[in-house]
Amino acid sequence: MITASIITIGDELLIGQVIDTNSAWMAQQLNSIGIPVARRVAVGDNWDGIWNALDEESGKANIIFITGGLGPTADDITKPLLCKYFDGELIINQAALDNVTHLFEHVFKRPITERNIKQAEVPNTCTVILNKRGTASGMQFKKNKTIYFSLPGVPFEMMGMMEDYILPFLSNQFQLPHIAHRTLVTFGIGESMLADLIQDFETTLPNNIKLAYLPNHGIVRLRLTAIGPEKNEVNQLIDALFADLKILVKDYLVTDEDEPMERKIGKMLLERNQTISTAESCTGGYIAHLISSVPGSSAYYEGSLITYSYEAKEQLLAVKQSTLAQFGAVSEEVVKEMVNGLLTHTKTNYGIAVSGIMGPTGGMPDKPTGTVWMAVGNAEKIITQKFHFRFDRQKNIQLTAMNALNLLRMFMLSNDKE
Amino acid sequence: MITASIITIGDELLIGQVIDTNSAWMAQQLNSIGIPVARRVAVGDNWDGIWNALDEESGKANIIFITGGLGPTADDITKPLLCKYFDGELIINQAALDNVTHLFEHVFKRPITERNIKQAEVPNTCTVILNKRGTASGMQFKKNKTIYFSLPGVPFEMMGMMEDYILPFLSNQFQLPHIAHRTLVTFGIGESMLADLIQDFETTLPNNIKLAYLPNHGIVRLRLTAIGPEKNEVNQLIDALFADLKILVKDYLVTDEDEPMERKIGKMLLERNQTISTAESCTGGYIAHLISSVPGSSAYYEGSLITYSYEAKEQLLAVKQSTLAQFGAVSEEVVKEMVNGLLTHTKTNYGIAVSGIMGPTGGMPDKPTGTVWMAVGNAEKIITQKFHFRFDRQKNIQLTAMNALNLLRMFMLSNDKE
Repeated sequence: MITASIITIGDELLIGQVIDTNSAWMAQQLNSIGIPVARRVAVGDNWDGIWNALDEESGKANIIFITGGLGPTADDITKPLLCKYFDGELIINQAALDNVTHLFEHVFKRPITERNIKQAEVPNTCTVILNKRGTASGMQFKKNKTIYFSLPGVPFEMMGMMEDYILPFLSNQFQLPHIAHRTLVTFGIGESMLADLIQDFETTLPNNIKLAYLPNHGIVRLRLTAIGPEKNEVNQLIDALFADLKILVKDYLVTDEDEPMERKIGKMLLERNQTISTAESCTGGYIAHLISSVPGSSAYYEGSLITYSYEAKEQLLAVKQSTLAQFGAVSEEVVKEMVNGLLTHTKTNYGIAVSGIMGPTGGMPDKPTGTVWMAVGNAEKIITQKFHFRFDRQKNIQLTAMNALNLLRMFMLSNDKE
Repeated sequence: MITASIITIGDELLIGQVIDTNSAWMAQQLNSIGIPVARRVAVGDNWDGIWNALDEESGKANIIFITGGLGPTADDITKPLLCKYFDGELIINQAALDNVTHLFEHVFKRPITERNIKQAEVPNTCTVILNKRGTASGMQFKKNKTIYFSLPGVPFEMMGMMEDYILPFLSNQFQLPHIAHRTLVTFGIGESMLADLIQDFETTLPNNIKLAYLPNHGIVRLRLTAIGPEKNEVNQLIDALFADLKILVKDYLVTDEDEPMERKIGKMLLERNQTISTAESCTGGYIAHLISSVPGSSAYYEGSLITYSYEAKEQLLAVKQSTLAQFGAVSEEVVKEMVNGLLTHTKTNYGIAVSGIMGPTGGMPDKPTGTVWMAVGNAEKIITQKFHFRFDRQKNIQLTAMNALNLLRMFMLSNDKE
């Protein structure tokens, strides 16, 4: 089996100032062409740490990816190190220089500097991978049958080079096994309850199939992974098992694709040719953002009214002053009036309203931090639900949004049955 | 120097299905008490991979953190492995069992299962670290002077155990050096232009000071790091250099703290006792979400009107049908009318409006994907700006939001001068 290791370089990864999203994306892409990632290692911008990581990972995988440390600034030492590691010397590469010059003239429209020209320097022992989206070239090396790729850490640039060159190159170069993943999304059941529910299924899985639980924000994703030499066999096996699994968890099943809740809801709205809008207090636009982050959402998303203050709730959503005074902003009565006010304005088929206290401040004895009321409705009917989340502001906002979207999903499904 | 390594366990990290945010947070916390993180390694849920990583990292750091693989489900093999690695046998720990029982009775309010009770089993060679937020206990081991901490992968649980027990324990246990970071945030200047601007400063930095560039969404953060035995000396040195750096980049300086743009803007609004609202088309609520994600934002954030469709723009923001027909939704004229309509409704001091085409579809010959118009204004004046972003939907939305917030910041600063 051909395997890969990913080495990410940068002090910022070791002091926690940035989160490494590159490795996850690269791992996804490599898995999809049949190259499992054995390890990921993050090291700082220091010579010995990088050198040792190269030595170590070389013994553990056939392909080594190195990202980061190729920027134009002085904290980047990766290129001189690779030059020494692979016994080369730095020379200007004409194709890389042409690319940098082109970018400055036609895309950035700024004068080119000495620093930028130096980015066209590469070790003469590498094959240059052109970077159409930026000034740092990628580099490919070979040593003792191991293949090395060095890529810039800027995600957009790294992704372009993977898609345009590296993934097709590796697919051609090796006889790769077939790896298949099937993922479904559940909501409203915890990891251990789910494990009890599918215990018999799990203990009888064949050896070349793995099951994983991925919990996040009230959602648990279940992922089956199968590996084998024959594409058809692998797919037949995993599809049969996945069908069984779907039946076992049917009461909690959101979608049988690896997609977020908001994308599933988008599909449901498109299928029904219906529209949605939101009236948000405590989530401050986050539900609207989730809905509109789906490409093509303009087909079913009209708009939203984000009402943080009492005044905004009264003026924009026609919530009655007396309701606010009697029950408070975080109440069943207010979220119902919010849905009604919203639908009057936006004329969408469905409306979602949420009002709550996300923390860290704002809690009251009878309504502690984490108290949330939400409502979902259409012109005929409104349903409501109360929650009490016990996390930090960020997570409370995310859980509120996820539960509101799920409440909408349940409402739509129950309407289908009527 | 005492150093740490972080080992994260889970196939989901190696197939790229989840992004590792735990390591970044842990690294931040450890740095702040004077323990630099030397390496981070991610391995899959397999016995040899975990065992080898433990062996290797033991030779590289004094403290090893292991996160993940402690859930109640069958894909988690970390606990039996640690039991063997540290020559122990699994026994029920009474304090851990009491904690699990308490959580089920009083917090989750569900019946406890066999699977949950098993989570109170730990190797008899460990010290248990109680998890007040979940059912998986933490474990502390010692072997050949190296200290090991095994923690659950659920961020909220891991964070609680770090804060309540591990960080205070390590601060007491070791004589730690002082590490100081100072970070400032710039906007509107690229990494290499910035490097040219501060070249003399950078080349004359003392040996125990490092400078790093952290670019993201139009922002470049500059971070100084100093290390030394004496807290006062370290702080004096870094503060003097940081003051010099701020002067050098003053034209691009957003804030001299490590905080996001939306938090800086929140502080500016609070200082001026002013309020803000947004009218968003293409960003679909993302700017509202950023503003309201800051704790205490209800003091200056009133609400927002998210108008995705032509109809919503007309009905909610009183944008004239003729303006939409003549200039299209993505135009200077429309964003100006959006600001006016917004301020009429919300009566806030400032309003932000954005309209654009985020992709992947919706582009037109004269207005390609990535075209954005934005406006910021108050009752007296409106300023506008046009952009052309060339990325994917997600990044276009983020860049639009960041630039809109920056335009507001510039508008507020220019008003101060008048």
